[in-house]
Parts: sequence; structure tokens; C-alpha cells
Amino acid sequence: MSSGGTSGGPTRSDEIETLIATMARLPGLGPRSARRVVLHLIRKRAGQMAQLASLMANVAENARECLVCGNITGADICPICEDPARASGEICVVTDVADLWALERGRAFRGRYHVLGGSLSALDEIGPEDLRIPDLIARIGDERVTEVILALSATVEGQTTAHYIAEALAPTGITVTGLAQGVPIGGELDYLDDGTITAALRARRKL
Amino acid sequence: MSSGGTSGGPTRSDEIETLIATMARLPGLGPRSARRVVLHLIRKRAGQMAQLASLMANVAENARECLVCGNITGADICPICEDPARASGEICVVTDVADLWALERGRAFRGRYHVLGGSLSALDEIGPEDLRIPDLIARIGDERVTEVILALSATVEGQTTAHYIAEALAPTGITVTGLAQGVPIGGELDYLDDGTITAALRARRKL
Repeated sequence: MSSGGTSGGPTRSDEIETLIATMARLPGLGPRSARRVVLHLIRKRAGQMAQLASLMANVAENARECLVCGNITGADICPICEDPARASGEICVVTDVADLWALERGRAFRGRYHVLGGSLSALDEIGPEDLRIPDLIARIGDERVTEVILALSATVEGQTTAHYIAEALAPTGITVTGLAQGVPIGGELDYLDDGTITAALRARRKL
Repeated sequence: MSSGGTSGGPTRSDEIETLIATMARLPGLGPRSARRVVLHLIRKRAGQMAQLASLMANVAENARECLVCGNITGADICPICEDPARASGEICVVTDVADLWALERGRAFRGRYHVLGGSLSALDEIGPEDLRIPDLIARIGDERVTEVILALSATVEGQTTAHYIAEALAPTGITVTGLAQGVPIGGELDYLDDGTITAALRARRKL
């Protein structure tokens, strides 16, 4: 995991070496980008590196999961669950916090969320109790929920999870919906996979 | 520079929002990678985020330029200038610390370095005194230097800088060399630019 140039006498100080090696392990970065980022931060060190360090220390200390929905936040309850303007009757179930953030960027949904924290997987031995599925069922009993939107990935695991939740909620009589499948906005048919084209054709609608 | 989802009620806590926005401004990262890195760090926060924060704070406080060569280091003199095993008679002149690191990864050069900190540029009004060129000339007077290797970029600015330094050192009688130009290792002729092919042909050598 060394970023090179260490054997046969060091080129950089140990501190810089360790920082680069640690950053190189972050997702989406590698030794090359880590070196670039660290050099950039050192050059502007009058401010940026120290500022970033203190931001990180702060988040490291305070970030935790919202007790209601599982979103990541700096308090016990996240801003979305706290927001009285958001419809509490609609719960959008997502696999991961990253998916919640993605939906929020779209700004189409104004209800509440529920983060599962993963997908069901027989292979990886992930069962319902390993995810926040029992919490979801408890929430539906407590809050006055009218619709559960399953915004899960269109993968085998995602759809297995969606199916399981839909079954588990069937006795409650609550409307359970899923995201529409079809051609993405701006998508060219020629570049789409067959599965998407088939799904879009099956779910065709009158214009 | 917000990474989205902030207007119309916040999704994330301000701390996380600021951390993502700051990371998104780093070279090679963007809002998407910044979100990914921050989420990753929060999930493993038991250790990694706090560790990275303290590494950064440390480097921010200690990193500085080597007083001799301009390499970035945690002390007044860098490990390369301190290393008695390295030939002090050869000085390899590079534009930037990143270039020094790149050369060290190759491990072909066992002398000392001199980091200019940029290239001469009439357009950007960067003259010799804005770079470490006077320091280089002073070094050559002080140290017993026999060869100066100009490992500068094969760009107009790089070659202008090389030319200027070669001229400035001409009266000293020291050997001034430049990197060879030619076909990169593993390079296929078909994919090379004409300039490189021409240079490689001109500098052809007997086998």
C-alpha cells in the first residue's frame, strides 16, 4: 500500500507518506490521485489542509445514524425527520444513505425516508434482522403511514428485498409501490441494455 | 459549490455538507466522489476519519519546503538532501515536487534534486526570480556539482526554461543534460503523435 519510492531511502517524510497511503485507500482514489490531493493541500496549507482536518475531526466525532430513519446526521434525529413540512404519511425505503442523498438531489419526493443499510442476500447471509426491516415494520405501526415507496436497486438483491418487504407489509393493507422502470431521461435506445428496453416496452403508456 | 439537495430544507447536517463541499474542490474529486469518500469515512468512523483528520492536521502543521532543494518535507532539510549515500555532484532540476516524486519512483537517479516551482512564462509574467533559478545557480557555486540534468517537461514552457538555465550555466563549464526524447516503453508507433516519432527518429541510435 506504499505509494512508491520508499525503499532505498525515503523521498518524503513519514507523515506525508502515511497521509498519502491512507488517502490512497479511499474509494475512488488511488496512489496517483492521493499524491495529487496531498500536494495540492500542502501547497495551500495556509488554510485548506488544517480546515479539512478539523472538519473531518468534527464529523468523525458527531456523525451518527438518525434514530428514526437511519440517515446520517449530526444529531439524534436527522433534518428530514425533524422537518414538519415533509409528509410523514409517505415513507421511501432506500438501500443506503447514498441513495437517500440521490433522491433528495432530484427533489421530487417530499415525504420521509427509511434506510435499510443493505440488501437481503442469502449468499452473504444477510437476513431481514440484519437490515432495518423490523424497524420499518415498527415505524409503520407507530406513524400514520399511507404509502411505502420501495426505491430499491433494479438488481436481483434489490428486487428480492423489495419483494420481501412487500410481502411483510401485505397484512397491513398499506399501499406499497416501486420505482417505474424504463428508458432513462436522455437515454438513447441504441445504447440501452435489452432488459431496460423490454421493461420500458412492457410498461408502455398512452400519450 | 454546494453538492446539491440543500435548498428546500437540508438533507445532511451542516458539518457533513461543508466537509463534502470542501472535499469536492480537491483536484481529481468532484461532488460525486466527495460524497462517496465522506460516506465511506463516516461508516468506518470508529477509526479512519479521525485518523485521517489527525494525519492531515499533522502534515498541515509540519510540511514545508526543503531549504536546499525545495522538495516538500517535514524538516528543514529533506531526506534526499540529508542522505549521504546520494551523489551530491549531480543535480536533477524538476519543475515541481510531483515530478521529483515521479523520478524517485523510477529509482534510476541517485543524486540530488532542485525543484524550480514552475516554468518560465512570458504570458503569466513568471521570470527567473519567481522560480528557484537564482538558488540553483547559488547551489552550483557552493556544492561541488559536475552535472545538471534538466528533467523538465517537453512543452514550450518546459523547454524555454531548460534553454534559459542551460544558457545561465554555460559560463560555469558544468555539463548540462536533458532527458532523452523518444518512444515511451510499451508505446505503439501507431498511437504516438508525430512530434514524438520525429524526435525518436532524429535521435535514433545504433543497436
